[in-house]
Amino acid sequence: MFIRHSGDYRWENVQLLAYKEEGNHFKNITRQILLDGQPELPCQVRYFEIASGGYSTLEQHQHIHYVVISRGNGDALVGDAIYHVQEKDVLMIPSLTWHQFRATSDQPLGFICLVHMERDKALLPTEEDLKLLNQNPDIAEFIRC
Amino acid sequence: MFIRHSGDYRWENVQLLAYKEEGNHFKNITRQILLDGQPELPCQVRYFEIASGGYSTLEQHQHIHYVVISRGNGDALVGDAIYHVQEKDVLMIPSLTWHQFRATSDQPLGFICLVHMERDKALLPTEEDLKLLNQNPDIAEFIRC
Repeated sequence: MFIRHSGDYRWENVQLLAYKEEGNHFKNITRQILLDGQPELPCQVRYFEIASGGYSTLEQHQHIHYVVISRGNGDALVGDAIYHVQEKDVLMIPSLTWHQFRATSDQPLGFICLVHMERDKALLPTEEDLKLLNQNPDIAEFIRC
Repeated sequence: MFIRHSGDYRWENVQLLAYKEEGNHFKNITRQILLDGQPELPCQVRYFEIASGGYSTLEQHQHIHYVVISRGNGDALVGDAIYHVQEKDVLMIPSLTWHQFRATSDQPLGFICLVHMERDKALLPTEEDLKLLNQNPDIAEFIRC
């Protein structure tokens, strides 16, 4: 199976999808499923792209992510750390760890995100969670939801 | 966990390794293990780079690969197809399928290769296998071993 890059971070016969089916806890973000995963390697390969000013959902879940930054730059919250991320940086998002990506520069932020084919649903922060997160002023300033 | 790209396809605190411990069925190729895999996502993330003129082993195995071309261009044999591959192209190498990557241009060919943490050992072609492969003149011209 060969999935040819057709230019500008689009791939032949790969649909450009909404990031999520519903919600308003994210902004200016698209999703492409490059490889769906198979029993022998149960890992989905997706490409997400956040336009300048946009952000992914602030969420956590049991399943973990491996992320390879593929386009532009931006910032990522992982737990209580905020990283400035650039092309080819690699991140592991552990279980049950708040995380959010933001395209904070004038460029898009694109990344490949690996995830298990079988996974739990993401949890959004409750008001109590947000109170805790906001105790750290850097996080309070960073998060969008 | 954050693995920062330190420039020129090297990452902070990631060792540059030999492609394989032994053998002479490959040429001018290095390996870096970016993420080792975990039970929750049992997928290793490695970056391989083949210098111009080099090649990976012609091999097959039960386990499958997902590959994202990350640097330069080159050619890949997968089964009986030979693909010219460029940055951001994606490949799936199925089970028990002969495959080989070659850096056929004047540039290196770098790619991220995803593989299950637990996997079988690669098989090299026997003389009988080579006879069969060589029946296809394009493959005969392509393979190096």
